[in-house]
Amino acid sequence: MKKVLIINGPNLNLVGERETGIYGKETLDSINLQIKEKAAKMNIECDFFQSNSEGKIIDAIQSARKNYDGVIINAGAYSHYSYAIADAISSVRIPFVEVHMSNIFARDSFRHKSVLSQVCAGQIVGFGKFSYILALSAIAELI
Amino acid sequence: MKKVLIINGPNLNLVGERETGIYGKETLDSINLQIKEKAAKMNIECDFFQSNSEGKIIDAIQSARKNYDGVIINAGAYSHYSYAIADAISSVRIPFVEVHMSNIFARDSFRHKSVLSQVCAGQIVGFGKFSYILALSAIAELI
Amino acid sequence: MKKVLIINGPNLNLVGERETGIYGKETLDSINLQIKEKAAKMNIECDFFQSNSEGKIIDAIQSARKNYDGVIINAGAYSHYSYAIADAISSVRIPFVEVHMSNIFARDSFRHKSVLSQVCAGQIVGFGKFSYILALSAIAELI
Amino acid sequence: MKKVLIINGPNLNLVGERETGIYGKETLDSINLQIKEKAAKMNIECDFFQSNSEGKIIDAIQSARKNYDGVIINAGAYSHYSYAIADAISSVRIPFVEVHMSNIFARDSFRHKSVLSQVCAGQIVGFGKFSYILALSAIAELI
Amino acid sequence: MKKVLIINGPNLNLVGERETGIYGKETLDSINLQIKEKAAKMNIECDFFQSNSEGKIIDAIQSARKNYDGVIINAGAYSHYSYAIADAISSVRIPFVEVHMSNIFARDSFRHKSVLSQVCAGQIVGFGKFSYILALSAIAELI
Amino acid sequence: MKKVLIINGPNLNLVGERETGIYGKETLDSINLQIKEKAAKMNIECDFFQSNSEGKIIDAIQSARKNYDGVIINAGAYSHYSYAIADAISSVRIPFVEVHMSNIFARDSFRHKSVLSQVCAGQIVGFGKFSYILALSAIAELI
Amino acid sequence: MKKVLIINGPNLNLVGERETGIYGKETLDSINLQIKEKAAKMNIECDFFQSNSEGKIIDAIQSARKNYDGVIINAGAYSHYSYAIADAISSVRIPFVEVHMSNIFARDSFRHKSVLSQVCAGQIVGFGKFSYILALSAIAELI
Amino acid sequence: MKKVLIINGPNLNLVGERETGIYGKETLDSINLQIKEKAAKMNIECDFFQSNSEGKIIDAIQSARKNYDGVIINAGAYSHYSYAIADAISSVRIPFVEVHMSNIFARDSFRHKSVLSQVCAGQIVGFGKFSYILALSAIAELI
Amino acid sequence: MKKVLIINGPNLNLVGERETGIYGKETLDSINLQIKEKAAKMNIECDFFQSNSEGKIIDAIQSARKNYDGVIINAGAYSHYSYAIADAISSVRIPFVEVHMSNIFARDSFRHKSVLSQVCAGQIVGFGKFSYILALSAIAELI
Amino acid sequence: MKKVLIINGPNLNLVGERETGIYGKETLDSINLQIKEKAAKMNIECDFFQSNSEGKIIDAIQSARKNYDGVIINAGAYSHYSYAIADAISSVRIPFVEVHMSNIFARDSFRHKSVLSQVCAGQIVGFGKFSYILALSAIAELI
Amino acid sequence: MKKVLIINGPNLNLVGERETGIYGKETLDSINLQIKEKAAKMNIECDFFQSNSEGKIIDAIQSARKNYDGVIINAGAYSHYSYAIADAISSVRIPFVEVHMSNIFARDSFRHKSVLSQVCAGQIVGFGKFSYILALSAIAELI
Amino acid sequence: MKKVLIINGPNLNLVGERETGIYGKETLDSINLQIKEKAAKMNIECDFFQSNSEGKIIDAIQSARKNYDGVIINAGAYSHYSYAIADAISSVRIPFVEVHMSNIFARDSFRHKSVLSQVCAGQIVGFGKFSYILALSAIAELI
Repeated sequence: MKKVLIINGPNLNLVGERETGIYGKETLDSINLQIKEKAAKMNIECDFFQSNSEGKIIDAIQSARKNYDGVIINAGAYSHYSYAIADAISSVRIPFVEVHMSNIFARDSFRHKSVLSQVCAGQIVGFGKFSYILALSAIAELI
Repeated sequence: MKKVLIINGPNLNLVGERETGIYGKETLDSINLQIKEKAAKMNIECDFFQSNSEGKIIDAIQSARKNYDGVIINAGAYSHYSYAIADAISSVRIPFVEVHMSNIFARDSFRHKSVLSQVCAGQIVGFGKFSYILALSAIAELI
Repeated sequence: MKKVLIINGPNLNLVGERETGIYGKETLDSINLQIKEKAAKMNIECDFFQSNSEGKIIDAIQSARKNYDGVIINAGAYSHYSYAIADAISSVRIPFVEVHMSNIFARDSFRHKSVLSQVCAGQIVGFGKFSYILALSAIAELI
Repeated sequence: MKKVLIINGPNLNLVGERETGIYGKETLDSINLQIKEKAAKMNIECDFFQSNSEGKIIDAIQSARKNYDGVIINAGAYSHYSYAIADAISSVRIPFVEVHMSNIFARDSFRHKSVLSQVCAGQIVGFGKFSYILALSAIAELI
Repeated sequence: MKKVLIINGPNLNLVGERETGIYGKETLDSINLQIKEKAAKMNIECDFFQSNSEGKIIDAIQSARKNYDGVIINAGAYSHYSYAIADAISSVRIPFVEVHMSNIFARDSFRHKSVLSQVCAGQIVGFGKFSYILALSAIAELI
Repeated sequence: MKKVLIINGPNLNLVGERETGIYGKETLDSINLQIKEKAAKMNIECDFFQSNSEGKIIDAIQSARKNYDGVIINAGAYSHYSYAIADAISSVRIPFVEVHMSNIFARDSFRHKSVLSQVCAGQIVGFGKFSYILALSAIAELI
Repeated sequence: MKKVLIINGPNLNLVGERETGIYGKETLDSINLQIKEKAAKMNIECDFFQSNSEGKIIDAIQSARKNYDGVIINAGAYSHYSYAIADAISSVRIPFVEVHMSNIFARDSFRHKSVLSQVCAGQIVGFGKFSYILALSAIAELI
Repeated sequence: MKKVLIINGPNLNLVGERETGIYGKETLDSINLQIKEKAAKMNIECDFFQSNSEGKIIDAIQSARKNYDGVIINAGAYSHYSYAIADAISSVRIPFVEVHMSNIFARDSFRHKSVLSQVCAGQIVGFGKFSYILALSAIAELI
Repeated sequence: MKKVLIINGPNLNLVGERETGIYGKETLDSINLQIKEKAAKMNIECDFFQSNSEGKIIDAIQSARKNYDGVIINAGAYSHYSYAIADAISSVRIPFVEVHMSNIFARDSFRHKSVLSQVCAGQIVGFGKFSYILALSAIAELI
Repeated sequence: MKKVLIINGPNLNLVGERETGIYGKETLDSINLQIKEKAAKMNIECDFFQSNSEGKIIDAIQSARKNYDGVIINAGAYSHYSYAIADAISSVRIPFVEVHMSNIFARDSFRHKSVLSQVCAGQIVGFGKFSYILALSAIAELI
Repeated sequence: MKKVLIINGPNLNLVGERETGIYGKETLDSINLQIKEKAAKMNIECDFFQSNSEGKIIDAIQSARKNYDGVIINAGAYSHYSYAIADAISSVRIPFVEVHMSNIFARDSFRHKSVLSQVCAGQIVGFGKFSYILALSAIAELI
Repeated sequence: MKKVLIINGPNLNLVGERETGIYGKETLDSINLQIKEKAAKMNIECDFFQSNSEGKIIDAIQSARKNYDGVIINAGAYSHYSYAIADAISSVRIPFVEVHMSNIFARDSFRHKSVLSQVCAGQIVGFGKFSYILALSAIAELI
């Protein structure tokens, strides 16, 4: 059985509570549950990690290299400037899929560029919680 | 039964023949066949359109608004400068999903920006032919 | 009797049907009819050409040099990047008037610059269908 | 009977005397007379204001809001950097039409951008004194 | 008893009448009255100066150096490009506090930069009429 | 009784000890004490939080949404690049006032732009420790 | 016997008729005839293709890969922005030589950069019709 | 006898009183007196004009065209952004010499560019009050 | 005996394990051991600190000011954007030497600029593990 | 008999010895010999000049104006920044042809722009030693 | 008796022979003679140095520090990029006056910026050979 | 015994005499002597070369390839724009170490970028004369 880690970055713990116009009304826990169920059907075991701290996200990425077959990452605002997270990803050999719930290209201009895109296998952007489900299919294809 | 149009832009007719290091060795016809089969299982009817001409792609997008429930578009190099295609998309109410086979963010810098992203619902980038399959799931969710 | 060609570029065939908030509810045919009537009063004969194709617009401009005394052009999104259309205009001696229905300077920043402006005699921007009527008066003055 | 104010900015008082290659040989007074006559036929009363002072142009715009139905403005070089004039225009509810006698897009690059365009209803550029006549027709349509 | 001059730049004379969504419904006179009362309690005498003219604002700043202990300035749109006002401020030894009623950083991008900020002691931005009251406290601290 | 949280970011714990030319000789504790006393007179209860960690500041902002009526934030150098902190602020409904002790516009150019300004209600910049006192008055007005 | 295709892009069909100050007075047909004669002496068979359409130029490039040993291309204004033509060239293995009749580096600044240069073997720029003759020698050397 | 007008722009009326480290301790009146004396020896009659108002400087330039043989202008901070003053200069046929007392290239970067330089005959920069004396010699050579 | 702290930033804990093409095959522990031995010969006592967290690196820098005579810092990717770390360094009086194992100027363009360079005494870049040894000599010279 | 000077700039004396992947394995002397032979057949006498010094290349260009009918120049890296060489070329009336052996547009971005292009008659780029032979034909056509 | 060195940079040896439209018809020798005569009247001894070589100009500047009281320098095109010459000037204590014969601000944009201006006392630009005479007066004032 | 060449560029011959605030009071000869002594202990023979001429520095680099095992280079201001020196370095196979005495990142912004960095093995910046000693250790490690 394959193992996949889903990493969520800063402020994504508030999904479902705040800015529901952009992110919808479901909480992160509820979304994670649906991902877990979907994964089970694909014979994949999912773990979830959320942190507002850049350093802890890097720690999690580094640990993943020994315990997981692939990673799905939504690094929130860190996506746009954290070269340290990008370096962590490129120092780990398992495949990463970058995910954004909102269409970042239709929002503020600073969100149009992700410094993680170059070091991930691919991106899935703009489909709300369904972005994670699609990423699960993608990672299953890659691992 | 829902209907989806898959539009491929310039030079994608050569997929499988040329630059196989980037795009793989399967031809567009072979990829289309797999999309069609997958779509059938999802109870979706697929049509395919490929052209090297910006004008004809715009014509196809305009026609789609009466005949399809959604569009998957890989506009090739036009993605990076064709505001005319972007205008066509935004003048049509059905949802569009933007697709790229290669990870455009890990290639030449002119490919890092797509002028279509802002007017599509979402993007799926970097998973080879599987990008289209994921887009099919995404469009099914949207329509 | 003088002859004037009115060229409309990509997506302007959908005027009146789509994005009526920006372009109003009259169709291009209806607008053209009003231009024709107004022109008749000014003793000018009008022809109309619309295409989504950059190449065909260039063909039309080149042909115009033998058959018309002046051209009114709304090149839509091509206005913002088609140096090939600009070259076509500057290779033809009859006067061109550039027209936009919406105030392009109050929309997306990529619309703030038209590469055609330098090679046209003048611009009329922002008065809806009335932009064409004003352009007719302007071209009458120029030819 | 509608009332329209025509505002001319810095150095336009010298039209007809200087740089006749760009602006022609008619004086501003002579041009204004023709505008007045044309306006009379359209049942519009015209007043004229010219100043080299940014502050006085702002004063004139502010006063216009109580006494006129529309304003035609050629702010000369102030068009390219006076955000204060732009703010004055946007604080007044009557429609403004921006006018330039020369084709500003075919001159020095600093003239390619007008900071007033975004807050005016439309622009008429490049037809010499006839730009004002066209603007009169345009403003008649708007008020 | 200390003396403070409050300078308001272009279009601020229309506060309370226009763009009440941004600036509120109180007139400048009404706001000034409240500032005066507040100042009296702080044992400060206030004078008020408003002009749409860059030159007169510079004159006022120069005169202030002999007659006032400090200046509160809201230079409106001139804040964003008038290096001449900035030079006037830096040629005067008494402290200046820059004030904006609206949050200029959440509006048009040309408003994000004030050329006066570098030569003022500090900035108070975004609290509507209360910005002036806070500035009064600040200037009291500085003089 | 209203509650306000004062957040201080990286290196502000050293205020009073280091770079006293810029920040003065009072320690953060001493400044906080004065804020507390001033607040008490305004019937406001203040809590204080300082951290060098971007993640912990985000945590603090998120917690604030349930326990405080407003926040005063001096995010130090994070002000200039932490879109993650900006996102945290915009995901919380209570008002934020941005504070800087020094005049950031008169220092290194990287300090001229704060990415937090757009999502805060207002900014108070350049008045040393008195910036916090002014912010207290401002937040009292807003809550 | 080797076969070479000479592709001319938009507006080059008007060479000899228009802008003779830049392009000389010989027509494209006359130039092509001279190229053909020169080629015959080099034992090369030449075909000629001209189109104003970006899409048809791409089609021609794609077809060339099976029928020609090399291509000489003067893509006119498309040289400066058509990444789609550049992609077509790089998807074809035979050598391309880029040609311009005028010295593009001594004209408008938008002409200083060709997006095709990187994917062609070399460039010959500025020698009028003789640019094509030199390109013929160059391509003979390459194939 | 030739006549020359010396125009001084914003804040130069304070020379000798303020920022004496940059501009020296002599007042403008004292400097003007020395210029007048020097001019007399060269058989040139000098008039002097100073204003803080952009509009009045433009008025003065326009009037000069009938009454003077040449103009020496130190437009202060307006030098760096007043295209309106530049237009006034270029609409007048007599020669202008641009003067700065301080070395503007060794001060703030916004002072490195003068928009007047292109339309003046020449520049004399950095020699304190002696800049005016040199300009007098230069204008004598030009007229 | 002098004391020196060696700080390593994000992902440097993986040196020797990952991207050995760039960083070599020795682990950080092994490198540290060699530094310690070399330091002993120079009569310097070394401590080592590694963290993936920006905040903890700032904490470490602040603590260093009381316990060490100098610091050698390789801040990894944080070097390129952490103004907060730069502020920490400049708030501490002991000398810092910046170190990079790889030649950052021959890698991705975002690595060409370090925001720490301005506040460190000097930089040693590109000599692999030997960069640390050289830095030790340098710091010995400085303290 | 016509005379042509071939100027080679910095580091081109090492051609054939170093970076043979880019420049091939023939030495400059060997290439020059082939140029000389080819020239003889065209009834042209060739001289050769190579220097690593910008000043000596300028001297050579200046001398050429009296002794040669045309110049072929490969200024190496000076092509990208030596406005002094460009000035020398434009001060000499005989025609210059710019040559590069490698395709400079497919190498480092600083090589994409030559400051000499504007003042030469034309450019021949990317054909190895054959670039010189083509330039010889070009210069023969020009003189 | 004071001694002044006049340094002329690349291509200025051709003054009077070439580009007489810009530089006039007098040779450098003739101009130098007039400077020498003028200097004699001011009791100044002049020496002249011209070179096309950046290195030799630096040598001349360095030597000047022991033998001259001031330097007049027209560094030609080197003015626009030679930071090495700028460094030489700033390493020498005697005053430098920068001279240009043509109005560099009315020519190509690369000439608008001189990297020497910041380290010279002042600039005299645009008065043909008379620029040197004015510089002589200026340097006399400075030494 | 290994041989190393130390190259110093423009104005470094004045070290110890001028700008002693930046470069210290020791002359280049004195520094070179210390390097030589240090080298002797490391069993390395050192030669020294200084020139103000870009061309002669290139000559020296080219000669070094046959006579030395490594080069230490401080190219002074040429470091910031001499792509010709960079090309010389990359055409030579022995290792180069780039050295700067001052911390170039804490000085003028044009000094923040060295075009040589990419082609040298590493950089040592900011340690005064000790930069050369460290470079000697570094080069000993590399050869």
